[in-house]
Amino acid sequence: MNFKTVEWKNNRVVLIDQRKLPTEEIYLEYNDYKTLSHAIKDMVVRGAPAIGVTAAMAVALGSLELKAKDLNQFKNEMNTICDYIISMRPTAVNLPWAVKRMQGVYQQEQDSSISNLQNKLIEEAQRIFDEDIKLCVQMGQHGANLIQDGDTILTHCNAGALATAGQGTALSVIYEAAKQGKKIKVFADETRPFLQGARLTAWELKRNGIDVTLIPDVAAASLMRDGLIQKVVVGADRITAHGNVANKIGTYSVALAAKAHQIPFYVAAPFSTIDWSIQERNEIPIEERPEDEVVCFWQVRTAPEGVQVRNPAFDVTPHELISGIVTEKGVAISPVHLNLKKLYE
Amino acid sequence: MNFKTVEWKNNRVVLIDQRKLPTEEIYLEYNDYKTLSHAIKDMVVRGAPAIGVTAAMAVALGSLELKAKDLNQFKNEMNTICDYIISMRPTAVNLPWAVKRMQGVYQQEQDSSISNLQNKLIEEAQRIFDEDIKLCVQMGQHGANLIQDGDTILTHCNAGALATAGQGTALSVIYEAAKQGKKIKVFADETRPFLQGARLTAWELKRNGIDVTLIPDVAAASLMRDGLIQKVVVGADRITAHGNVANKIGTYSVALAAKAHQIPFYVAAPFSTIDWSIQERNEIPIEERPEDEVVCFWQVRTAPEGVQVRNPAFDVTPHELISGIVTEKGVAISPVHLNLKKLYE
Repeated sequence: MNFKTVEWKNNRVVLIDQRKLPTEEIYLEYNDYKTLSHAIKDMVVRGAPAIGVTAAMAVALGSLELKAKDLNQFKNEMNTICDYIISMRPTAVNLPWAVKRMQGVYQQEQDSSISNLQNKLIEEAQRIFDEDIKLCVQMGQHGANLIQDGDTILTHCNAGALATAGQGTALSVIYEAAKQGKKIKVFADETRPFLQGARLTAWELKRNGIDVTLIPDVAAASLMRDGLIQKVVVGADRITAHGNVANKIGTYSVALAAKAHQIPFYVAAPFSTIDWSIQERNEIPIEERPEDEVVCFWQVRTAPEGVQVRNPAFDVTPHELISGIVTEKGVAISPVHLNLKKLYE
Repeated sequence: MNFKTVEWKNNRVVLIDQRKLPTEEIYLEYNDYKTLSHAIKDMVVRGAPAIGVTAAMAVALGSLELKAKDLNQFKNEMNTICDYIISMRPTAVNLPWAVKRMQGVYQQEQDSSISNLQNKLIEEAQRIFDEDIKLCVQMGQHGANLIQDGDTILTHCNAGALATAGQGTALSVIYEAAKQGKKIKVFADETRPFLQGARLTAWELKRNGIDVTLIPDVAAASLMRDGLIQKVVVGADRITAHGNVANKIGTYSVALAAKAHQIPFYVAAPFSTIDWSIQERNEIPIEERPEDEVVCFWQVRTAPEGVQVRNPAFDVTPHELISGIVTEKGVAISPVHLNLKKLYE
């Protein structure tokens, strides 16, 4: 990848500003956890794994800001920081997963110095970052085996390098299939309302030499019926123990259409995206985002003043519609509600 | 309705500029058929019945521009004008239907004066306009019987007063149900890429006192699964003799989702939208619109330069997914490929 989504650099966190892509490639620096947390909320950075990595770095950054007198005070203040970071977005489980892993660094410590813990937190954030890069490649390699030479693959939202520290989840499957020499094409759903497909997926695939065609979300089913799509691969924000997949709003529509046309529908996500504590779709909190994302466009009003709006940011695709979940350990094929757990164990 | 979509006024045609809604309510005047034809192509006016009415008026306008010396020359030049108007948009059958009906006014005439034919053409265009107003009410009344008190109805694109000379096709069903005293709510799909739902449907429903909530197209399936939608009603641009329905891109996705959730899916359209000469979906020409509609927004670029784009403006919903087609003569219920013809006869 010839850009960096998230990076730790001299005790600062650097993010590519995803709100400005594809017209501007701007990198923002953060040296306090609160501003960085709001970068998560405001979608400067998005994508479940990238949110996880950024959240871990926010915890490390927060630890450097503390002036705690003793270990107890440090732990208490760190817990407050961690709760704050977790509260930024409700759906992606990688956010609490990463923050809780960071909390594990200091919670059991009895007599470590604070500066030692700060170093350990920076190291742990770096470890989460490094692991994510590796996981992406592993998912990509497992998933690429599902792709045939000549396939056209539909993807929704952005589950690429811009959604991870590495080369993505769903898009890693595409990058690895291309690396294997398979001639593939991609249809990228533009992904209203935030246009991650148009602004991010089309941008990064084009930049990495993949043949990509942008389509309005509403065109996907029709292109499937015309026989122009052979596979669907998407990412995930949270997967229940039963294989029900929360992902960007619209994923469920794509899954229904894929089922109707007997097109395999794959989800690519690391195990950190699985929330083993829940099973059913209604146990996943679905974030409702601001109305402005729907009724305004670059400050231009596109709907009448005062109209009511629903803007759920995610939906849940039931396991029955999923042909396989691609993880770092391999692919849990359908029935995924049984095979996901087997693969994990 | 407290606005006029299309109107014949002192040998001019007045259109509300639908590209400017909802932020500006501007009326444009046309006194030549070529400029008016391009208003159809550029979507100043859109919606199959409104296109039909406008096309009829364009034919009348064209006749006034001619300086033909004799009846034969008049007929020949009129035919050229008619072909030109028909070529503006390929999918909506109301366009050739209205133009051919206008051609019927002069084609068999042997000794009429040209000024007499011009008057007859103006009268025929006015008749098509008047009939459309009446048809809309009839469709609305038949369709309203399908709606229950308390229903929330999903609609896609704009099949309202802005798509007809009257009070709409699909939205006429909603207006009449409300007139019957039924408490109903509407979810309006925003309808990418041209946002007819956000800009037009939300605007006209709100203006007429209907409880309307705007949603991104991608949210419809998820709201269905949450049990928040009881009926779907959409319009049509062309219906084959077998009841396959071409309508705004995305309609097919909605129909698939409605089927998956056992939600009745209705199409409202006058008989002039039925093309009895064809049966299958692939016999309907599907217009591919300019890329700019997808990659730009109010001149702001939303996708990387040079990305490939597919922008089909319509899709075809197969008759198996349609619970009923609401016409001016009543409702052809499922199986619509059998009942549509029976209703017509």
